[in-house]
Amino acid sequence: MTGGLLKDVGEWGLLEIVRKTFAGAGRGVVLGIGDDAAVLRQGKKKNLLAATDVLVEGIHFDLSYTPPFHLGRKAVAVNLSDIAAMGGTPRHALLSLALPGRLSRDFYTRFLHGVKSISSEYGVSLVGGDTSSSRGGIFVSLTVLGEAGPVVTRAGAEDGDRICVTGTLGDSALGLNILKKTRGLSLAALTRTERYCALRHLDPRPRLAEGRALCAGRLASAMIDVSDGLMSDLEHIAQESRIGARLWAEKIPLSREFSRLAPSCGLDPLAVAASGGEDYELLFTVRRRQSGRNLSRILRTQVTEIGVMDASLRGIVATVHGRPYAIAHKGYEHFG
Amino acid sequence: MTGGLLKDVGEWGLLEIVRKTFAGAGRGVVLGIGDDAAVLRQGKKKNLLAATDVLVEGIHFDLSYTPPFHLGRKAVAVNLSDIAAMGGTPRHALLSLALPGRLSRDFYTRFLHGVKSISSEYGVSLVGGDTSSSRGGIFVSLTVLGEAGPVVTRAGAEDGDRICVTGTLGDSALGLNILKKTRGLSLAALTRTERYCALRHLDPRPRLAEGRALCAGRLASAMIDVSDGLMSDLEHIAQESRIGARLWAEKIPLSREFSRLAPSCGLDPLAVAASGGEDYELLFTVRRRQSGRNLSRILRTQVTEIGVMDASLRGIVATVHGRPYAIAHKGYEHFG
Repeated sequence: MTGGLLKDVGEWGLLEIVRKTFAGAGRGVVLGIGDDAAVLRQGKKKNLLAATDVLVEGIHFDLSYTPPFHLGRKAVAVNLSDIAAMGGTPRHALLSLALPGRLSRDFYTRFLHGVKSISSEYGVSLVGGDTSSSRGGIFVSLTVLGEAGPVVTRAGAEDGDRICVTGTLGDSALGLNILKKTRGLSLAALTRTERYCALRHLDPRPRLAEGRALCAGRLASAMIDVSDGLMSDLEHIAQESRIGARLWAEKIPLSREFSRLAPSCGLDPLAVAASGGEDYELLFTVRRRQSGRNLSRILRTQVTEIGVMDASLRGIVATVHGRPYAIAHKGYEHFG
Repeated sequence: MTGGLLKDVGEWGLLEIVRKTFAGAGRGVVLGIGDDAAVLRQGKKKNLLAATDVLVEGIHFDLSYTPPFHLGRKAVAVNLSDIAAMGGTPRHALLSLALPGRLSRDFYTRFLHGVKSISSEYGVSLVGGDTSSSRGGIFVSLTVLGEAGPVVTRAGAEDGDRICVTGTLGDSALGLNILKKTRGLSLAALTRTERYCALRHLDPRPRLAEGRALCAGRLASAMIDVSDGLMSDLEHIAQESRIGARLWAEKIPLSREFSRLAPSCGLDPLAVAASGGEDYELLFTVRRRQSGRNLSRILRTQVTEIGVMDASLRGIVATVHGRPYAIAHKGYEHFG
């Protein structure tokens, strides 16, 4: 197939074209296109990590509910999350911007202060960038460079490995739902529960310490951050590891805030948690001998076992208390 | 001043805000925001270079005269030129794209083949990226990583240093003028002279070997690539080196094609050559003892002396055969 429009080819179709076009590793490339970050050899036991993510107005965010400070923070956070998912430490960032001239100087400085605040928190220096005008909305592209020893890829999961996830899922998708409904209100005008979910969407926390601990202790056999949505990202692990997975959907960890708010928003809680996306939690697999409780202790955060890798399956099979469960949708499809 | 819109603040105003916000070098940062590429320490005598440039539809290019293959090549070339201006060698690239769903699959594959063709020519591997849909035109952001020993910055020019430039200037700006006039025609339909200039705009050649030679031989005291335009980029060297410069405008090297075509296009040749931009030639300063002829021999390309750094001057003073020369304009102003 060579014809058609991008919206017909679809996001994964496009990624396949990129992979085919740029097949074959280059000099110094440990891991190229297709994981959370590229891995480049820097020394005997030292790797350079490089990740890039783009945020587009009208696709990833909307100024009617996204404060510029949080937009700046999030542009960095989503990239730091990619570094976390490899088990690395972020060091430097480059920022490319295209901005409409109608934006205010105030918007710009708030945005930059957002970039700076999260960069400082995680010891990242902004070392370069490029700023252009734009006739079609805001584009933010950030590249983060980090370092790592050995890394954890998406491809290491084996039959019987337990599937674990940090924190809780669905808060971000629910938060987005709330932000859209309360458009025009300030965050301060939301209830505490609503604000919790809204901030999980606007200001995700990259799991850097957890990613490093999972990598350094050789605890995780495969890892990814939950950006597209649990189902979608688990599928990435399954595909790259060439093995199926069974998801115990009733075990998906939900926050108290989420459980309280989701039903009143008219949403199917499980569907939102399983495929909502933008949680930026770490989804990883561990060998059987590791228990979720033990991992919670080591990582000093909630870790939940939500399934098992299964060589007898193709793709992801989800169940609720043993009964088949069909997930409604699978994350955001860019060219769908 | 804290109010106003971005279009009133202007491009350099925005850069000043970025510099102030992110002042202070971070860990491992040899050179941060403000030069052609960031320089990050990787070992005792080894540096990592990182440069990023963004191309925005309607600002940097227009699909009515930009073939996708050439857009792909140029997105890489402008970044390679930044690496060249530091005296480095490019190794890896990351590509961020936002694309409207109405684009064809054919457009996408041609664009990627452009990226690939120039990457292969210069030994660069594409190792990562991100692709999003866009509701506001095409946005291309590329980050190139490279390596270097010692680098040449914009800040090393001293009183009496000669100002030199590789190749010829103005071809790209004239080419853009021709492309706009012949919109809708294929490149094959242009005269040979027109096509030469058009390709200088669509397919610039990064001066990597020349940059490395100038750096390795410690020939250049300061260096930049001509992207904004000669006047503008010379001003960057002057500002960063805290010294003025005298430009002998009559010495600006012009190609035969440019000299033949510019007058018939109703353009002031000198004004176009001095401020047209996007030449991606190397503009550099050398100590007095180096002659242009000697440098041409070493670099195996045309090198022309076009002026001298002068501590008694503020900013750039341009003359034509000794008489003051006022340059009409100074490159593209993004938020002007």
